[in-house]
Amino acid sequence: MKDQASVIRETDGEARRLARTLLRSARYAAIAVIEPETGFPFASRVLLGTDIDGVPVILVSGLSAHTRALNADPRASLLTGEPRKGDPLAYARLTTQCLAESVERDSAVHTRIRTRFLSRHAKAKLYIDFPDFRFFRLIPQSASLNGGFGRAYILDGSDLMILSAANEAVAESADAVVRDLLALDPDLARKTAIAHKGRAGLDWAISGVDCAGFDVISGDFLLRHEFDVTAQTRQDIYSHISNMKYSIPEI
Amino acid sequence: MKDQASVIRETDGEARRLARTLLRSARYAAIAVIEPETGFPFASRVLLGTDIDGVPVILVSGLSAHTRALNADPRASLLTGEPRKGDPLAYARLTTQCLAESVERDSAVHTRIRTRFLSRHAKAKLYIDFPDFRFFRLIPQSASLNGGFGRAYILDGSDLMILSAANEAVAESADAVVRDLLALDPDLARKTAIAHKGRAGLDWAISGVDCAGFDVISGDFLLRHEFDVTAQTRQDIYSHISNMKYSIPEI
Repeated sequence: MKDQASVIRETDGEARRLARTLLRSARYAAIAVIEPETGFPFASRVLLGTDIDGVPVILVSGLSAHTRALNADPRASLLTGEPRKGDPLAYARLTTQCLAESVERDSAVHTRIRTRFLSRHAKAKLYIDFPDFRFFRLIPQSASLNGGFGRAYILDGSDLMILSAANEAVAESADAVVRDLLALDPDLARKTAIAHKGRAGLDWAISGVDCAGFDVISGDFLLRHEFDVTAQTRQDIYSHISNMKYSIPEI
Repeated sequence: MKDQASVIRETDGEARRLARTLLRSARYAAIAVIEPETGFPFASRVLLGTDIDGVPVILVSGLSAHTRALNADPRASLLTGEPRKGDPLAYARLTTQCLAESVERDSAVHTRIRTRFLSRHAKAKLYIDFPDFRFFRLIPQSASLNGGFGRAYILDGSDLMILSAANEAVAESADAVVRDLLALDPDLARKTAIAHKGRAGLDWAISGVDCAGFDVISGDFLLRHEFDVTAQTRQDIYSHISNMKYSIPEI
């Protein structure tokens, strides 16, 4: 029944996996920035995506309060992990302290992020190319995981990054990777969703494949599957999927 | 399809009512504070209540990161208004810029806030009296309402306060006021819930009566009814309720 920092536990693999899942499965987040005129903290809501290296990305209007703030001071804090029924504080949430980097348009990074973002937020295609919209990469510096009452952990920024030599290659061939995965198991998206407590009756699709796992998506629902070990080659991803099958209940 | 500050509209009565409802019907909020050691913004989650004058209140552990931050710098930002299905940015949300005041234990204010908080968060009775827990009143200084795409408004802190000579009297006789309301209409809680799109099949109770309106609560669900005009006497509340009946569909 304590709050965030009462007892900091030793950060273990389970805590890291929970933290990564909370960050990478969040469709939106509360973002805290510093108001340039007043120095006040300012909390608002942003749509969230992830880059191929696990870095959270936001798509924002240049006219918004948080964008003006980040242009003046790149320090930002993201709160992810939404409560469901019952006591809101019983649900795990993650505070990620980040430094924001504006993403240049017409760059390879922009193209990569734009593709990944649209595969998660299809409706953003209505405004993603408006001239006043831009992406920020929010580079994690550290994080505080609150896994529910009395379960607090401190993480390094690097705990939330995906460190793999195959990042670029996987990003460039994401569509092909998804096709290969579905060739391995045409029912992979639905099985993964069910393994992560998603509804069986929905149409699930694979999106956001990276070297640490992949997302399954159905309309507003987004679930994240994390591999046990980060893939260092594209082939590693297929091996992880093949191993994974046995831990998913057959439907 | 613009973000927060693209076009600030003129703040009208409808915007004020929406902002008040977003703040007063929130069971929890994202809070942004300033980390004392680093100056970084820090976002976390808090349970939310309201004091009799409309001031939002939080119950926090003295060991938590946000409490340590507020002790060093009272500036805080609250984000309320949770998305439901569909595009998260299509839902209204409110950012309230506040100055935090610690509430002294064994004061009349503490007793008043404690009673109101427990009527909203019954489970908090497990830890509300722990010696390291305390309340802060978060006095609104200003607020930004984002009513969905292209509907941005700026509010004064006073727009979110309940200014009435009857505040103290209503707080002291809250149980009697609820009894009187139920004598006027035994079905008032359920009718109010239905008028505010709550589920008809649940058991609804009245809680949190104040001079600007009242809450109806059923387990995790909290809905807020705002009067058209702030009551200046306890009798005014009964008149508002009697007038209100006609705007609620008969079941």
